[in-house]
Amino acid sequence: MTSQPSSARTFRAVDLIRKKRDGQELSAEEINYFIRAYTSSEIPDYQASAWLMALLLRGLTRAETAALTDAMLHSGEVLDLSGLPGKKVDKHSTGGVGDKTSLVLAPLAAAGGLIVPMISGRGLGHTGGTLDKLESIPGFNVNLAVSEFRRVLGKCGCAMIGQTAEIAPADRKLYALRDVTATVESPYLICASIMSKKLAEGIDALVLDIKTGLGAFMKKEEDARFLGELMVETGKRMGTRVAAVFTDMDQPLGYYAGNALEVMEVLEVLNGRGPDDLRTLCLELAGWMFYLGGISEGLEEGKDRAAGLIASGKALGKFVEMISLQGGDARIVDNPQLLPRAKQTRHIRSDRTGFVSAIQCETVGIATVVLGGGREKKEDSVDHAVGVVLHKKVGNEVGMDEPICTLHYNDESRAKRAETLIRQSYQIEDRPGKARPLVQGVIQS
Amino acid sequence: MTSQPSSARTFRAVDLIRKKRDGQELSAEEINYFIRAYTSSEIPDYQASAWLMALLLRGLTRAETAALTDAMLHSGEVLDLSGLPGKKVDKHSTGGVGDKTSLVLAPLAAAGGLIVPMISGRGLGHTGGTLDKLESIPGFNVNLAVSEFRRVLGKCGCAMIGQTAEIAPADRKLYALRDVTATVESPYLICASIMSKKLAEGIDALVLDIKTGLGAFMKKEEDARFLGELMVETGKRMGTRVAAVFTDMDQPLGYYAGNALEVMEVLEVLNGRGPDDLRTLCLELAGWMFYLGGISEGLEEGKDRAAGLIASGKALGKFVEMISLQGGDARIVDNPQLLPRAKQTRHIRSDRTGFVSAIQCETVGIATVVLGGGREKKEDSVDHAVGVVLHKKVGNEVGMDEPICTLHYNDESRAKRAETLIRQSYQIEDRPGKARPLVQGVIQS
Repeated sequence: MTSQPSSARTFRAVDLIRKKRDGQELSAEEINYFIRAYTSSEIPDYQASAWLMALLLRGLTRAETAALTDAMLHSGEVLDLSGLPGKKVDKHSTGGVGDKTSLVLAPLAAAGGLIVPMISGRGLGHTGGTLDKLESIPGFNVNLAVSEFRRVLGKCGCAMIGQTAEIAPADRKLYALRDVTATVESPYLICASIMSKKLAEGIDALVLDIKTGLGAFMKKEEDARFLGELMVETGKRMGTRVAAVFTDMDQPLGYYAGNALEVMEVLEVLNGRGPDDLRTLCLELAGWMFYLGGISEGLEEGKDRAAGLIASGKALGKFVEMISLQGGDARIVDNPQLLPRAKQTRHIRSDRTGFVSAIQCETVGIATVVLGGGREKKEDSVDHAVGVVLHKKVGNEVGMDEPICTLHYNDESRAKRAETLIRQSYQIEDRPGKARPLVQGVIQS
Repeated sequence: MTSQPSSARTFRAVDLIRKKRDGQELSAEEINYFIRAYTSSEIPDYQASAWLMALLLRGLTRAETAALTDAMLHSGEVLDLSGLPGKKVDKHSTGGVGDKTSLVLAPLAAAGGLIVPMISGRGLGHTGGTLDKLESIPGFNVNLAVSEFRRVLGKCGCAMIGQTAEIAPADRKLYALRDVTATVESPYLICASIMSKKLAEGIDALVLDIKTGLGAFMKKEEDARFLGELMVETGKRMGTRVAAVFTDMDQPLGYYAGNALEVMEVLEVLNGRGPDDLRTLCLELAGWMFYLGGISEGLEEGKDRAAGLIASGKALGKFVEMISLQGGDARIVDNPQLLPRAKQTRHIRSDRTGFVSAIQCETVGIATVVLGGGREKKEDSVDHAVGVVLHKKVGNEVGMDEPICTLHYNDESRAKRAETLIRQSYQIEDRPGKARPLVQGVIQS
């Protein structure tokens, strides 16, 4: 799998639409032509959207999926980090509520000898975004130029930035079109979108955290599994080692949801504390990163290494280093009160005794958005201070009037709406509910 | 089924695309909104093309097809011909090679007491178009304003014009988009396109001539039958009587293909002569028009009536009248040599003895286009004089060196290419081939 041939053939867009419409397989050359011509606006939006709908409804073969990923990857710059010593490994999550693992993993993996060139997105809808969490750290700059990104990587082994104009421009253009033409929900298109952006980082290996459950983008387990298989296979065809870890998103991850609040929980984990589920998932994903990156012989050895790097404070040290290099105020590590804080807090108390049997995870995510901590539309601004702190998770016992959750808010009417949502999301019954296992399976190439 | 409600709801285009993408049925209100908003450019092309692809791949229910037809019909003006005495009946053909029946049927049906407000199209690809044939008559104006169209109809009972800007603008806009997004070949979309334009003529009944065979747009019999059933059912739901007559297009209809040449053959039929197949089909279709229009009790009576109107010269008289009213030189009726004539003619002779077992009908149509008598692209101009005169049809015996066909041409190199095509199209074998029956079936509401 390489870049486009130097003497590229041209095709008629309408013929390529018809071919896919009729369920035939497109060649890599045809797919490459379509993506190249669409990115340069030779093919108009109205032909691309018909093609996308045909792709969505007809599906793609594994070869087509890899060709699409490759074409989108080569629509822009592919980073060459070969000058930096060490394996380049990244992690990508399909998104959830309270998922702050990226902020733990980047410094943790870098502390263990990997290079982590992490390019992330912003939150949209009920799921949070890594960039918004990072930006709650005063001064932290996620908009580094590629040269600056490379410099930070060279100095501390990890750097975390947002999408740049140079990386996979085809994906940016296609995604905007998919969003308004109901062509987002195709595993093939999702795979190509994620994999093209991640492979453009110039990485050797990728660990995917694929969420399933009520708070996940993919609610059905079989859909999540299909997407995971597709991405592992696509990585294999493109010469990148990929492991897909399927993890539970039936309830929020950890206790904190909201940008600055999540950074506080990240600090807990990097200090060797923090909630079990978050800590366990971070060690699991770091273990895979070390294993795929050749740092450890197996997963368990990788997990042990990760635990050791936390215990020794080396992972936290890397986090401090990265924050400073990206312009952030690293004093937040010792003084989390320097992070933005909401003006008001309010407990939400249980109106009965019993056990938490379920938490409607998506509703908790929406409550965070309602407080101002996320975006309903892309243009919305984010209040980094607000959020939700859960005190009870699935299986926990609850007393009458005991706080199940604390809202951190800056606006009374928003808090009221969020409280209603939180009350709706908690299900308390006489018998304890059973949380699903955190790690539900793994596929690797 | 009525026009759009006065207080029309609005929807989000992306939701309507998603609904159809997921195979759900759209309501008449939703379809009406989409068509109205697309026609007024509130919905952009890129959303419409994704929607069209979803419609094509998911299919439409009968109710959706009728709703789409109704919405497209009411996107523009619907003629009100109630002021003219008599039933308004039209005929539409799905197009073929040598199909000049419209020019016979309009005056023939008008001579029998019907009003025939015929709005037709131009030729594209291997099939000819009624407007091009009419325009080979010197002075004939197919671009009448609606008021003028109505005046001609009032005077002689028939008029033949091209599509106007007022009639079904949604179809014009959608068709241009379908053409470049590979969404033409959907029976549902074809049905809505044809029926919306025909019903905008304000007719009481419609006779469809649906061609099947090698020279037809729909080559497979089951596809033609499906389209016919769909159009009859759609007409029924919209309160218009429709009969779909399935007729053979395995070989050209009549002997003449090319615009002025076809007008000559029309004159033959209106004079009580002409080839059997063409004459038979004209009587059959006229019979249905008289029956559906309530002029005759049954099909046979209608056919007899049509034969009588030809024998008496009344049909020819109507043709003369219509030509004059539309500015044409009616002297061509007595002096066909006043029609455009090609400079050169050339016989194509058989290189063996035997029987014609098949004629590749589409190839004959392409030969006519190659001579200049049709269009490869919409913008092409047409040479009305050129064309092909067949001397032998399927089943005919052929002697060595006997002419099977005569080319009428104005350009030597074009004639050469056309000769090659004609030679390819004729299959001559030792035993006589068997022509398929001309009329293969009928469906009526």
